[in-house]
Amino acid sequence: MARNALVTLLTDFGTSDPYVAAMKGAILTLCPRAQIVDISHDLPAHDILPAAFVLAQAAPNFPRETLHVVVVDPTVGTDRRILAARLGGQMYLLPDNGVITFVAGSQPMEAMHVVRNPAYLPAGASMTFHGRDIFAPVAAAILNGVDLHRLGPMPDTYKLLDLPAPAEQSGGLAGQVIYIDRFGNLVSNISSDDLVRRWKDLDRLRVWCAGKEIGPLVGAYAFVGPGKPLALINSMKLVEVAVNQGRAADLLGAAVGAEIVVRAG
Amino acid sequence: MARNALVTLLTDFGTSDPYVAAMKGAILTLCPRAQIVDISHDLPAHDILPAAFVLAQAAPNFPRETLHVVVVDPTVGTDRRILAARLGGQMYLLPDNGVITFVAGSQPMEAMHVVRNPAYLPAGASMTFHGRDIFAPVAAAILNGVDLHRLGPMPDTYKLLDLPAPAEQSGGLAGQVIYIDRFGNLVSNISSDDLVRRWKDLDRLRVWCAGKEIGPLVGAYAFVGPGKPLALINSMKLVEVAVNQGRAADLLGAAVGAEIVVRAG
Amino acid sequence: MARNALVTLLTDFGTSDPYVAAMKGAILTLCPRAQIVDISHDLPAHDILPAAFVLAQAAPNFPRETLHVVVVDPTVGTDRRILAARLGGQMYLLPDNGVITFVAGSQPMEAMHVVRNPAYLPAGASMTFHGRDIFAPVAAAILNGVDLHRLGPMPDTYKLLDLPAPAEQSGGLAGQVIYIDRFGNLVSNISSDDLVRRWKDLDRLRVWCAGKEIGPLVGAYAFVGPGKPLALINSMKLVEVAVNQGRAADLLGAAVGAEIVVRAG
Repeated sequence: MARNALVTLLTDFGTSDPYVAAMKGAILTLCPRAQIVDISHDLPAHDILPAAFVLAQAAPNFPRETLHVVVVDPTVGTDRRILAARLGGQMYLLPDNGVITFVAGSQPMEAMHVVRNPAYLPAGASMTFHGRDIFAPVAAAILNGVDLHRLGPMPDTYKLLDLPAPAEQSGGLAGQVIYIDRFGNLVSNISSDDLVRRWKDLDRLRVWCAGKEIGPLVGAYAFVGPGKPLALINSMKLVEVAVNQGRAADLLGAAVGAEIVVRAG
Repeated sequence: MARNALVTLLTDFGTSDPYVAAMKGAILTLCPRAQIVDISHDLPAHDILPAAFVLAQAAPNFPRETLHVVVVDPTVGTDRRILAARLGGQMYLLPDNGVITFVAGSQPMEAMHVVRNPAYLPAGASMTFHGRDIFAPVAAAILNGVDLHRLGPMPDTYKLLDLPAPAEQSGGLAGQVIYIDRFGNLVSNISSDDLVRRWKDLDRLRVWCAGKEIGPLVGAYAFVGPGKPLALINSMKLVEVAVNQGRAADLLGAAVGAEIVVRAG
Repeated sequence: MARNALVTLLTDFGTSDPYVAAMKGAILTLCPRAQIVDISHDLPAHDILPAAFVLAQAAPNFPRETLHVVVVDPTVGTDRRILAARLGGQMYLLPDNGVITFVAGSQPMEAMHVVRNPAYLPAGASMTFHGRDIFAPVAAAILNGVDLHRLGPMPDTYKLLDLPAPAEQSGGLAGQVIYIDRFGNLVSNISSDDLVRRWKDLDRLRVWCAGKEIGPLVGAYAFVGPGKPLALINSMKLVEVAVNQGRAADLLGAAVGAEIVVRAG
């Protein structure tokens, strides 16, 4: 039976080369009713962490049974495996390189299979462009109704990124910047759940970023003056350090990995 | 009754973060037949003028009843209002921050409502990502057939950007650059209508930009040699200063606000 | 009879201005069932070679009868012609400026017509934005079922880019870099067919780029260590010089036009 044919693409291909369109053409050739939505193609090349983060923030907003195809795949052509999985009602087709990390950490795993069934792997695939030659036809097969378990066996294990968790430190909780967005906002790995577990009263908390005191948790960017730094619980329910109408990454000189500390004031 | 489900998005979210896809997923979850077209997500962050200009140039080209959703919204989370409006047969959902300025100046207003009806405002919306949490579900409601007047009351007034109009100056008409496009073309606020009202014979007019004489109004970019500056009435019916196969903004050192003067030659 | 309504767009308009959306709106107004896919809008402005290359790599992956509309058109407004053509089962609508070069070199020509029939050319088209004012309505007409031969006469000739072919040189085959992609990969004009015609045993071949020896042809990027240069036959069946998880263009200081030489080792 044909499924929902909604499919998203998340790659590091950029948008000036023919690669994304080649993938879309290959999917539409095999599944003409596919409805393709771009998550992003402008991720840093070869960098799995931001892809994993973006995937986990975007995918759960889509209708159930949407297929999310990820091709951030620096080890294409080696024996790295391709996984087809269902977590939290969404389907995923991605390389087994850790890009599933944040989805696996936040969504219930319902199925996972190694894509290995030669019936669904085209002969003559290139070794450099699996997006077009393997991910696209396998995605079309899934959109056309092939059950994930037909694609191959369940894996014994799968790869996760080795990420530090927020840790207790001198009377507070110390985490780090894991993502910087287009606005220069610094997104940390400290969640509102982490704060609620640690403190009863979030109103009294204060936030430090890269050793500088930012202030209390406020409600929205415009709660401080333009150009001023602030901290808040963002729409992903993570502690974020930002600058109202400015760029925290620039103002604070902070990069991915910079320390974020929350303490009672 | 279900309307046309064509919806465009215009944001300053960029295309590398999960924000645009999160909005699209939220719309498609609530209105699966939505047909989403990007106007742009690459506008300068927090800058309302270019968003207002791009909206007015793009939106009128779409089929009647298309819904245009704008999230360039630096004061998200404050008490700024959200407006749902119909102008010139197109529908708009946008923050009340002036981003409607050029549409309101060029299209007949048919309806305007403040989005305030709690029946259409999800509980638990974040204060930092109204694109996903408020604009998306309200857009889906409109696409699903909710009449604009059900969203809230008509406003007494709404915000417009305070833009100077072209003015009479030493025997000519003086305006300014209001938009610079990807090609470095300098688009002014002087329209062909302004010229026709002021002069009988447009053939004799000459154009100055930032104090430099450019020349007469020509028909197309390639009417001068490659690398040479020119002036023309562009496809938006505005006086534009350009360089054939080059960048006027760079060659003339002109930015938004630079003076453009038209005089009889 | 109405055709498949799949249409791709390839322009140098960028994605921050209203131009692409204006074209899409114009197409959807005249052909509401059009399904629009972006090939790219981020090509270098006014540069026909990369557009021609990207078109030829992307288009053949789409379903038969897809219409590919190209607006990289630095001589818009002059007497340059617009062509509507069918090659290899795909339809093309593009300016007669050489952008068809790589498609014409790799796909069988089935039909070509100069778009000249006034019945399909809107009165009052601007001279600066043919994408919206001419390409969009002609594309909609084709999507709505108008046969290409009704658009105008067959041309006596059409423009092709003057590109050097790989040539015999001191015991090898010398070509050049014709395209650099987002990853900094250097794509040459030497095809695997060129190699097979010249040598029996590809295993013994070695590749030089800009005078530096790169090494043998390997199977995939990850066959050398991160940061190391390599050469391979890429997914377009062209000799490519790359750096595993790095940028060959930067490491080797090579630009479009740099010499690539293949010799028996």
